Amino acid sequence: MSVSVNSSDQVCENGTAELLPATNDDHGGVIVDMKDAMEPQAFRALLRASIVQWRLQGKKGVWIKLPIELVNLVEMVVKEGFHYHHAEPHYLMLVYWIPETTNTIPANASHRVGVGAIILNDKNEMLVVQEKSGRLQGTGVWKIPTGIVDEGEDITVAAVREVKEETGIDAEFSEVLAFRQAHKKFFEKSDLFFVCMMRPLSFDIQKQDLEIEAAKWISLEEFAAQPVTQKHGLFKCIHELCLAKVKGNYAGFSPLSIESFFDDKLSYFYLNRQDIQCLTSSVQS
Amino acid sequence: MSVSVNSSDQVCENGTAELLPATNDDHGGVIVDMKDAMEPQAFRALLRASIVQWRLQGKKGVWIKLPIELVNLVEMVVKEGFHYHHAEPHYLMLVYWIPETTNTIPANASHRVGVGAIILNDKNEMLVVQEKSGRLQGTGVWKIPTGIVDEGEDITVAAVREVKEETGIDAEFSEVLAFRQAHKKFFEKSDLFFVCMMRPLSFDIQKQDLEIEAAKWISLEEFAAQPVTQKHGLFKCIHELCLAKVKGNYAGFSPLSIESFFDDKLSYFYLNRQDIQCLTSSVQS
Repeated sequence: MSVSVNSSDQVCENGTAELLPATNDDHGGVIVDMKDAMEPQAFRALLRASIVQWRLQGKKGVWIKLPIELVNLVEMVVKEGFHYHHAEPHYLMLVYWIPETTNTIPANASHRVGVGAIILNDKNEMLVVQEKSGRLQGTGVWKIPTGIVDEGEDITVAAVREVKEETGIDAEFSEVLAFRQAHKKFFEKSDLFFVCMMRPLSFDIQKQDLEIEAAKWISLEEFAAQPVTQKHGLFKCIHELCLAKVKGNYAGFSPLSIESFFDDKLSYFYLNRQDIQCLTSSVQS
Repeated sequence: MSVSVNSSDQVCENGTAELLPATNDDHGGVIVDMKDAMEPQAFRALLRASIVQWRLQGKKGVWIKLPIELVNLVEMVVKEGFHYHHAEPHYLMLVYWIPETTNTIPANASHRVGVGAIILNDKNEMLVVQEKSGRLQGTGVWKIPTGIVDEGEDITVAAVREVKEETGIDAEFSEVLAFRQAHKKFFEKSDLFFVCMMRPLSFDIQKQDLEIEAAKWISLEEFAAQPVTQKHGLFKCIHELCLAKVKGNYAGFSPLSIESFFDDKLSYFYLNRQDIQCLTSSVQS
């Protein structure tokens, strides 16, 4: 259920001074993307007139995107019955549901996505770090390099980037070995954490100073011997995954490039390609 | 890198009238959770005094959570140098970075999470639907039941719920067969879509009227013959996954319950349990 915007589909022309310029979304609603300053009173008059019109047209959700520079309009828009939908550092998105029927406005993004990288060298030692902040700060715990996937970033790219940033090691993405979903990890949001297998392309560690206390190659035995590995499921699973990969009998999900439904955009579909090799030739772009 | 809040760790007592009540986060910052109405001018004075104090204490990020009822404070907070961080329907979270060093405030949630359910009956027919809205509206395309994972909801639960809501079929979660990451699917946000294998527990379809035009059991041949299946990667992959499951030679990721690092909370770790059976007994709760 995507709400991509068809920007060429103008609902009302700029020439119609009484209504706000808006574009249609794919679900019978309209989007007002405010760019220029306006007095709250003048904006309110336009908004009210526009909603009357949109109601007559049978429109559903009304979205108003306000850049942070137009913060002076926020209070008025809320007083007109809008709710917040989401915010990014430089804008706030508000929404209003016109019909009498059930509000089907889709929820805001609900998950942060993280990656962790398992990298083994030719002695089957694992690349690990100690972090300078967060709950493991000062505990001496050795963990795999991890980080947050940036907005719009592929998991494959994030894993390579985080390993390079934290340890200076160049690596290439191989497969997703496993993932964890956890809730209420960041305020009310959930977390999807992908454990990625990577192939090292260099071995000389240059640790980053801002976030990383120490980095090294550690034997799987030493990693397993840490109390945290014996106690906690995630560490235990990561150790088991390393052992399975060393034995060579574990299939994760590797990425396949597929085209989108309605445009030429490519995205990655992650699946067990060891078990479904027929697909590779028929779908990969 | 979670920013869970340790609410027992009060930075300044309510008795100190000159400062805002705040709690520490896990990364050297403070969180102000505003509950009561206040005049913008009075709030500004308190905020300024508090930031002076927090700066002396070496605090980093300052978070202010404003319920929508306190929308009259938003403009002032922005004018004091705060940015938006995220918003939910009933509140707005703003943030300010005190130190001179690089801002390491973690980004807002970046992904929506969706599920699609592959359900085969004992004739190897697949459960499919036609949707009433969205880009497939009116196209006659048969697709697997899909939906968005609610805030705080497990993928396993969402898949069961969506199938029940759309088709009336009871089913139980089996495994994640594959997943897709796509960008800019909902305004600027990305999308993680998990293709889930489910076991049907009932077979009598009772379609939902609000979102679903039609629902039925379809042969894999008929699904494959749709132009959309031949043209689009995701449909093609879903068909191939069905064939692989019918042949019985495809291993997906199935959920294992693991405990969290720092509390007793359980979460699911999804992995190829066919290849790593040793883990099951040692970790599952």
